[in-house]
Amino acid sequence: MNLTQAREQLLALQDRMSAYNHALSLISYDGETTAPSGTAANRAHTMGIFSDILYTLSTGEETVGLLEYLDEHRDELSAKERRMVYLLLKDIRFMQKIPKDEYVAYQRLVVESQDVWTRAKNASDFAAFAPYLEKIFAAQKRFAQLAAPEKDPYDYWLGEYETGLDQAKCDAFFARLRERLVPLIRRCQEAGQVSDACIKGDFDEARQEKLALWLMEVIGLDTAHVGLSTTEHPFTTSLGSHFDERITTHYYREDLSYSLFSVIHEGGHALYDTGSDDGLAYTVLDGGTSMGIHESQSRFVENILGRSRAFCAFVFPKLRELFPAEMDGYTWEDFYRAVNRVQPSLIRTEADEVTYSLHVMIRYELEKKLMHGELTVRELPAAWNRLYKEYLGIDVPDDKHGVLQDSHWSFGAIGYFPSYALGSAYGAQFLRKMKETVDVDACIARGDFAPVNAWNREHIWRYGSLLTAQEVLDRALGEPFNPDVYLDYLENKCRDVYGF
Amino acid sequence: MNLTQAREQLLALQDRMSAYNHALSLISYDGETTAPSGTAANRAHTMGIFSDILYTLSTGEETVGLLEYLDEHRDELSAKERRMVYLLLKDIRFMQKIPKDEYVAYQRLVVESQDVWTRAKNASDFAAFAPYLEKIFAAQKRFAQLAAPEKDPYDYWLGEYETGLDQAKCDAFFARLRERLVPLIRRCQEAGQVSDACIKGDFDEARQEKLALWLMEVIGLDTAHVGLSTTEHPFTTSLGSHFDERITTHYYREDLSYSLFSVIHEGGHALYDTGSDDGLAYTVLDGGTSMGIHESQSRFVENILGRSRAFCAFVFPKLRELFPAEMDGYTWEDFYRAVNRVQPSLIRTEADEVTYSLHVMIRYELEKKLMHGELTVRELPAAWNRLYKEYLGIDVPDDKHGVLQDSHWSFGAIGYFPSYALGSAYGAQFLRKMKETVDVDACIARGDFAPVNAWNREHIWRYGSLLTAQEVLDRALGEPFNPDVYLDYLENKCRDVYGF
Repeated sequence: MNLTQAREQLLALQDRMSAYNHALSLISYDGETTAPSGTAANRAHTMGIFSDILYTLSTGEETVGLLEYLDEHRDELSAKERRMVYLLLKDIRFMQKIPKDEYVAYQRLVVESQDVWTRAKNASDFAAFAPYLEKIFAAQKRFAQLAAPEKDPYDYWLGEYETGLDQAKCDAFFARLRERLVPLIRRCQEAGQVSDACIKGDFDEARQEKLALWLMEVIGLDTAHVGLSTTEHPFTTSLGSHFDERITTHYYREDLSYSLFSVIHEGGHALYDTGSDDGLAYTVLDGGTSMGIHESQSRFVENILGRSRAFCAFVFPKLRELFPAEMDGYTWEDFYRAVNRVQPSLIRTEADEVTYSLHVMIRYELEKKLMHGELTVRELPAAWNRLYKEYLGIDVPDDKHGVLQDSHWSFGAIGYFPSYALGSAYGAQFLRKMKETVDVDACIARGDFAPVNAWNREHIWRYGSLLTAQEVLDRALGEPFNPDVYLDYLENKCRDVYGF
Repeated sequence: MNLTQAREQLLALQDRMSAYNHALSLISYDGETTAPSGTAANRAHTMGIFSDILYTLSTGEETVGLLEYLDEHRDELSAKERRMVYLLLKDIRFMQKIPKDEYVAYQRLVVESQDVWTRAKNASDFAAFAPYLEKIFAAQKRFAQLAAPEKDPYDYWLGEYETGLDQAKCDAFFARLRERLVPLIRRCQEAGQVSDACIKGDFDEARQEKLALWLMEVIGLDTAHVGLSTTEHPFTTSLGSHFDERITTHYYREDLSYSLFSVIHEGGHALYDTGSDDGLAYTVLDGGTSMGIHESQSRFVENILGRSRAFCAFVFPKLRELFPAEMDGYTWEDFYRAVNRVQPSLIRTEADEVTYSLHVMIRYELEKKLMHGELTVRELPAAWNRLYKEYLGIDVPDDKHGVLQDSHWSFGAIGYFPSYALGSAYGAQFLRKMKETVDVDACIARGDFAPVNAWNREHIWRYGSLLTAQEVLDRALGEPFNPDVYLDYLENKCRDVYGF
């Protein structure tokens, strides 16, 4: 093997990996959007076989030999190639430590588990889901211990979603949030509640879909490459490359804002993914670099832009056009206040910006205990309900609206939740930086996302996974990450909405 | 290798082939149902890679060694295993003769071609599709010559869709049809036309979808394993095994009957596929044995049952419930006559039972000429239009309603069309046989498909591809195939509808 051949093989390897990832993502997406109810076992059959093949492809002798050869010649490689080799070897180092049969069994488990979770959530039947959740936590704990025996297993998974993150950093970050958010929420409550009547009612689903498609265009998605479907829980997925991206939403007739903000949230993920340089397609560098940066982009569009005065004023005429009876008698400022109402509530994805981080904190605390054996899955629903009472002051009526509400655990994403709060905080700091060169409010007020998207593309999107999250932050911000920028942003928003 | 290991490997091989077929079918299905408009190249990328891998898997040294070993021990194999080895070796013998790069290029071609066809059809732009069609005919001619140099290339492809079929048999079959159908159509026309007013109008698509889902239940599909979507052109596909089957339809607001009969046509295919013994899943024996038998099942449900007096009387109350204004003043007999109206028309899939075979004949004549170089793709639209004038007496207004109407050629299905006519004829003979033990009319009149489905399952479905088409016919009928049974059936139908 010479270096020229090895470089070609590096691309061919990633080409094939992309094909399997395309198939696996599509089979999973089909399962959540279109597939008949009785077909989960059939999907699990194929996904088991492909996971097996992908495991061999990614960790087999030939691949390891290739990557180690390239790693020895790393000084002769381009920055892109070096990063590819680094990321591929990182996964190999992980997978080499997991027995193949356990890895394949785990892949089958999470496919079935998602199906069971969907049914369990609908029936509010935690007992049906519990055996799967036990196996998932046990497997992820075991995998972490196999992959990094020197590390705390929860630290391991936190670091997988956000390089360098651990419980010490999370504890400090969440402590600072709590310190400023708890009094802020109290001040809002004392100021007297604003009305959200204009977003509650009976909103035709077909019109909500029209709104969703319009919003996708407004925020600058290329709908020739980004599709929209409906699922139980909204998500974004890439099929093989950023050339085919899918977002999903869920329409609630009684609440206009749920789908509206979920579409622009998932749309933010899709902007980031599809903003990768085309030259990164069919490689491991395609798509976002960390969950934190990913959430910074989704929550940036959803909240920082989407719940701004400028955007609410821009969107309102479209709402009046689609829902003339429902919007009758309301102004865009009613809409602005309604979507910025601070109110402790049950469901994370419907939470306002200010209480949102408390939902994340609850999941963080529970994951930490579950991973350390300080809590069993059997005890989880009661513990969940206790923390909702303690942090948010509310009673959870059933598990459907409690511990079963999020899909993340059903597909094994443990350690993911903190990145939602971190991403929100990154987003606020990106905004402050962006405003040095872009008149963000003026652009958004006229529905012109192009200058904002250009800034994000230039500083964040185009790199895909070529840079680490820390490199993206350092280059884009030119200053250290500081959660107080986010807390200042939230405080200003509350002052404006509640007038204190 | 010992025989026990070889038998296990035989199943493992087919397991993996099923996984790739699942992925390839799903990617294609996604492309036709859900995918954003600009994503065809991304699908072609993955499908090219998988076709390449599937080619190696199916024809590689290891597989050939395994199958030849098993073939040498065929006397020690079960009937199922012998048939698996036979079918797998048959494909190998074919693929061994096709250079791998040509095979992979062809797979990419048909993916792009389907996308181009969809757009060309919508724009009635044959010129855009022509270069793809030229390449597809050239490739299929070349593949036939490579696979069976001793055979006429069109005979080769006819035989691929229906074992033993060739131009001599088709010529004789179609001649007999023409001999009796042409005077029959004339007699209908002379009898004075019946009205189809009750199925024309403005039929809400959401209600048509409700009807479609109801019909799926009525004909006995298990909707936990059979899904419904909408596409340009209706089709049926299995995803990996008969445990996940998808049918599609297309709703036309102005015509109630199109989707109604396309759903039960595709539903007939799905009944056949999902009726395979479960023990055949994830093997090459899963699903139907030939296109002719497949079409016999789809056209059996669509026409022989679906357009019977009994079924029309049973369905009509549901139509009145869903479309009370549109059905006002009509009786079930109006509906029966409307859906059995004999009228030469432009579109094959909308044609009545009697003129239908003439549409097939036109395609057969054109394919024959194209495969023998007696007609060029450039000359095809004019030749198409000429034959429609000659056989059906009608003028084709544009290529959208002419040569671009069917998707078959866009995915390389040359030699498929005759099986539609053959299948119709098989179906009529199955009915005559079934009536010896099942009171078909009484069952259908009460919407009870179970006894009819039980007969088909017993004699046809459960075998999957374990038996050849000829074996299925011989065992089910106990007499030779005779197209006059079909022609008698059509003549009786016409006498009843037109009263001569």
